[in-house]
Amino acid sequence: MTVHIGVIGTGMIGQDHIRRLTTVLAGSRVVAVSDVDAERAATVAAALSRPARVYPDGADLIAADKVDAVLVTSWGPTHEQYVLAAIAAGKPVFCEKPLATTQAACLRILDAEVAAGRRGVQVGYMRRYDAGYQAMKAVLDAGDIGAPLLVHSRHRNPSVPGHYAREDAVTDTAVHDFDIVRWLLGEEYAAVTVLRPRRGRHGGDLQDPLFMVLETSGGTLVDVETSVNIRYGYDIRCEIVGEDGTVALADRGPVVVRREGAYAGRVPADWRERFAGAYDAELRDWVGAVAAGRAGAGPSAWDGYAAAVVSDAALQALHDGTRVGVRMVDQPDLYRTGR
Amino acid sequence: MTVHIGVIGTGMIGQDHIRRLTTVLAGSRVVAVSDVDAERAATVAAALSRPARVYPDGADLIAADKVDAVLVTSWGPTHEQYVLAAIAAGKPVFCEKPLATTQAACLRILDAEVAAGRRGVQVGYMRRYDAGYQAMKAVLDAGDIGAPLLVHSRHRNPSVPGHYAREDAVTDTAVHDFDIVRWLLGEEYAAVTVLRPRRGRHGGDLQDPLFMVLETSGGTLVDVETSVNIRYGYDIRCEIVGEDGTVALADRGPVVVRREGAYAGRVPADWRERFAGAYDAELRDWVGAVAAGRAGAGPSAWDGYAAAVVSDAALQALHDGTRVGVRMVDQPDLYRTGR
Amino acid sequence: MTVHIGVIGTGMIGQDHIRRLTTVLAGSRVVAVSDVDAERAATVAAALSRPARVYPDGADLIAADKVDAVLVTSWGPTHEQYVLAAIAAGKPVFCEKPLATTQAACLRILDAEVAAGRRGVQVGYMRRYDAGYQAMKAVLDAGDIGAPLLVHSRHRNPSVPGHYAREDAVTDTAVHDFDIVRWLLGEEYAAVTVLRPRRGRHGGDLQDPLFMVLETSGGTLVDVETSVNIRYGYDIRCEIVGEDGTVALADRGPVVVRREGAYAGRVPADWRERFAGAYDAELRDWVGAVAAGRAGAGPSAWDGYAAAVVSDAALQALHDGTRVGVRMVDQPDLYRTGR
Amino acid sequence: MTVHIGVIGTGMIGQDHIRRLTTVLAGSRVVAVSDVDAERAATVAAALSRPARVYPDGADLIAADKVDAVLVTSWGPTHEQYVLAAIAAGKPVFCEKPLATTQAACLRILDAEVAAGRRGVQVGYMRRYDAGYQAMKAVLDAGDIGAPLLVHSRHRNPSVPGHYAREDAVTDTAVHDFDIVRWLLGEEYAAVTVLRPRRGRHGGDLQDPLFMVLETSGGTLVDVETSVNIRYGYDIRCEIVGEDGTVALADRGPVVVRREGAYAGRVPADWRERFAGAYDAELRDWVGAVAAGRAGAGPSAWDGYAAAVVSDAALQALHDGTRVGVRMVDQPDLYRTGR
Repeated sequence: MTVHIGVIGTGMIGQDHIRRLTTVLAGSRVVAVSDVDAERAATVAAALSRPARVYPDGADLIAADKVDAVLVTSWGPTHEQYVLAAIAAGKPVFCEKPLATTQAACLRILDAEVAAGRRGVQVGYMRRYDAGYQAMKAVLDAGDIGAPLLVHSRHRNPSVPGHYAREDAVTDTAVHDFDIVRWLLGEEYAAVTVLRPRRGRHGGDLQDPLFMVLETSGGTLVDVETSVNIRYGYDIRCEIVGEDGTVALADRGPVVVRREGAYAGRVPADWRERFAGAYDAELRDWVGAVAAGRAGAGPSAWDGYAAAVVSDAALQALHDGTRVGVRMVDQPDLYRTGR
Repeated sequence: MTVHIGVIGTGMIGQDHIRRLTTVLAGSRVVAVSDVDAERAATVAAALSRPARVYPDGADLIAADKVDAVLVTSWGPTHEQYVLAAIAAGKPVFCEKPLATTQAACLRILDAEVAAGRRGVQVGYMRRYDAGYQAMKAVLDAGDIGAPLLVHSRHRNPSVPGHYAREDAVTDTAVHDFDIVRWLLGEEYAAVTVLRPRRGRHGGDLQDPLFMVLETSGGTLVDVETSVNIRYGYDIRCEIVGEDGTVALADRGPVVVRREGAYAGRVPADWRERFAGAYDAELRDWVGAVAAGRAGAGPSAWDGYAAAVVSDAALQALHDGTRVGVRMVDQPDLYRTGR
Repeated sequence: MTVHIGVIGTGMIGQDHIRRLTTVLAGSRVVAVSDVDAERAATVAAALSRPARVYPDGADLIAADKVDAVLVTSWGPTHEQYVLAAIAAGKPVFCEKPLATTQAACLRILDAEVAAGRRGVQVGYMRRYDAGYQAMKAVLDAGDIGAPLLVHSRHRNPSVPGHYAREDAVTDTAVHDFDIVRWLLGEEYAAVTVLRPRRGRHGGDLQDPLFMVLETSGGTLVDVETSVNIRYGYDIRCEIVGEDGTVALADRGPVVVRREGAYAGRVPADWRERFAGAYDAELRDWVGAVAAGRAGAGPSAWDGYAAAVVSDAALQALHDGTRVGVRMVDQPDLYRTGR
Repeated sequence: MTVHIGVIGTGMIGQDHIRRLTTVLAGSRVVAVSDVDAERAATVAAALSRPARVYPDGADLIAADKVDAVLVTSWGPTHEQYVLAAIAAGKPVFCEKPLATTQAACLRILDAEVAAGRRGVQVGYMRRYDAGYQAMKAVLDAGDIGAPLLVHSRHRNPSVPGHYAREDAVTDTAVHDFDIVRWLLGEEYAAVTVLRPRRGRHGGDLQDPLFMVLETSGGTLVDVETSVNIRYGYDIRCEIVGEDGTVALADRGPVVVRREGAYAGRVPADWRERFAGAYDAELRDWVGAVAAGRAGAGPSAWDGYAAAVVSDAALQALHDGTRVGVRMVDQPDLYRTGR
């Protein structure tokens, strides 16, 4: 079965997902697009080798008979309404992060899914599909390093755009670390502190780097470094320290070059290079799950809510300079089986 | 445009390519299958989510209107006839290695393509699509290590089936090294010697390992180790030694595990794990080229012929224990532009 | 000139230094020994190939004409008296860590040295002589990674003896990290916090691991993990994160072994294996400095004092669970030129 | 006991060994020196902190009562006479490579030692004391990779002086590889072939690189690459391929630097940097053996002879372009116990 997908939001990330669905991955067709900028939507639709209909409004797209499943890549504040509409329509929805821009909105989505009685929302935390993180989890789950006690996570970008604010280090950058470590550990966070080392010269007035310390409900300590102007490359590093050993992401250069006094491997230039495989795998898995009529293995609405809660706590910790508790609602049964 | 593909040969490798075309990659449909075992072909066709017609004969499949392009994964001795038929029908054809089982057959294919005046044959040497080899070639072509002088290539399998004969180390195993090094260097071979170290205990009567030394027309020296019972994993290694430095395939483990006195990474278990990405990229590129009406960037019929010539020379060198010259016909102009 | 050395304290570390001076390194003779256990001192002296005199008391040993320089490897609480006596006698003294067991005692040593007007004390923080840390400092000082912003330090022991208490993680273990990072950065600490992740199963009631966060006077943030029951080996790791890049200790296995599905290198079994070269270099440098009539490049009494201050602060932070300021006296001019 | 050493030959390597004995290593004194250039000998002697007597003639130095052991670092053609004189005088002798410049001379030394009935000669193949090669041998001898079948050895120099001739690639360069692989395997060579790839641009008229293939008596195949103008550094690489796995020298950079798009480690600049530890360990072991009145664990006169034989065969193979047999005399019993 070919999954007929409607895409709401045809900006950069939307176009990239459309490219992926139409030219990289088997199993789906993009049959409908919508964007707040109708002209852009039309241009994107026209460039497809197979026709897609342009809808003036995301709600109409979701309602359309020919649309089996919905991909939400619109502006963050609009995520809630489209995800809720998809749930109401009984259609699976893949929503780029964030699930919604407030905890309250995330809770409304959880309520809607629980009321619907089945999971149909996947959130775009693509790292869970990265071969490196998956191998880390396999080592951990196999018990090879004992129970996890500490996690060291590093999120390094060569540079960020001028509009990047210090809050973005939490909500755009570290949120990926928050999510992936939750997934690796299978634990929720209990508290977070944000420390501010002195600034590097490349960030201007930006408070960069940051060093965040999170405690999980089970007592595992997680530290996250965000260095978003570090020039040398896009370097995502993670080590889990267990009772008997550790597991860490390896360097990824495909070749070793020996020249000019050194042996060297390549650091990825940006997130596209680093996570291209994860983005592909994420959508492949989702399309496959939709075709099979089941929820995907990817991040659920609960994970989207959890990200919102810990992000809010980290923002407060950043502003106040204090340790801030992370308080979540009780996890609905619907999401228990998802892990 | 969706490429409609007919597959001749529905054995293990044929089924794997069908799986890839129908469930992994965008851009194609498998519309026709054929196999010497008609029942197997029918079973494979029936398992597809979209119907494919079963043809009793490969020739009929090639002739069928609905078939845009042909994938030949049948028994080696039948490759020639199907490739020639596809050329005659003006249809692009992807032929698993070997292109044909004799040099004479390969030459007939070259003649047919030259007579047709356009290239339509791609041969399944998938290593050219491996990210590691592509990065090696990029480093070499950029001039970062100067002109190449030596190449060290290692082809290690954990084990081989009982029917594997010492000739297979040349025709099934080292032939991949022969092809990829030709491609890396952009040079043809001039001579080959095959040396026989003492046997390891795992190979029984098999002459394993082997150590082959090839000289290119430009004087670059290439040594190829085949160790096909080495137990520890499927390990493909290659280093180009240039005037100013070297470039080599890196170890590929996605994580580093620290336990029991060691830091360690994983060696792939088999060729599927090692080259999964290359197989995907190979067919993706071919389907894309077919859709665009051009020849793919992959190995051409000339490359298939070259592999046959050097394999034959290596077999003779293995049998005679002498240095054997590699003699090829003049390269038709058609293939000059292909590189 | 051969340096004639008197050794006070002939326990395990004293014997090891005597072995080093007499059988490994050129330039010195051990001419005198002393120990609270006179019999042990006599036994150690008798085992030397060249005779050494046994002194019943460290003070007599220091005063002996034939003793050019003093090595203090006695019980910590006795360090102060011997170091002060050596300063009073105008003899160079190498004192194993700690310099003294209280800040007040360290300050008395500083006062004595300042009054004497010349530096003659070296403290046994041997990491400064490790090839890895020296290379890190060279990279940092060359400006290759820009100004340092963060330091991640890991101190992992396979196990600790039963009498090891949680305070030992600060005073015996992390104190090495405190010292080496001070040296790498050329900065003093301003504050320290000690976090307590959940305990691993190997440590019994011991609070292990610990995670300490230190702030330097310049704002660099330093985190130190102590995992002293981690089983897999003795693994000392350190990464400096700068504005433009990072530098980290490399894995040190001399060979890569490929077997059983993995490529692997060896982690040192214990501190002797890891730092054998540093211990040799440390004493070689000190003996050379004594022979040349100058202060060695190693840790000074000021460094010993600094270690005491930050250790005390970390102990308080461990006990109280709060961020504790690190307050040092003004650095005497005598030590300014030493860096 | 302090070993009193007489040094014959005070050129560069002699001075370096004198520096090592007098300022680095415990256990010896240089009490006598001699050189064909008497003035140079006098200058070297005068620079020592403890007086050494200058002898006009090596024979007198060897005969001197105060000389316990002899270090021969004179011009190669004089080695034989000094080694024979030391054997005649019953004094242990450490002779820099080569043991002698002809096989006949080496055999005369063997005869003299056998006649004397005890081993007293050590030859300066220092690689056997390198931590990397020692770890390789430990892995091999432990059976971790099964029986050895192939050895790949790489000897890369950034550049060589103008007087370096193609024969030097055998006698100065590859001879180290010949020796270390014999030692690793515990096998003698049976034949050698020398292949000539095309020349790199840095070597001028020099035939560089070379690729040598040696067969041991047991059938292990050993290939040796010499690339002596490769610019990027002094890189010594070796891999033993066994039945179950492989062991290889690891890269040795003490730190990993991440900057400008790469993670990188340092390649040694020259043989001094690469083998400083091996040179120290070699002389330390020899001095210790002399003091203990036993033969050292280092290369014996038999090893020196073996190096001469395989070098001669490789030179002939280089000149003739053929496979040349390696023929050695029967090994005297005296040397059997030495392994």
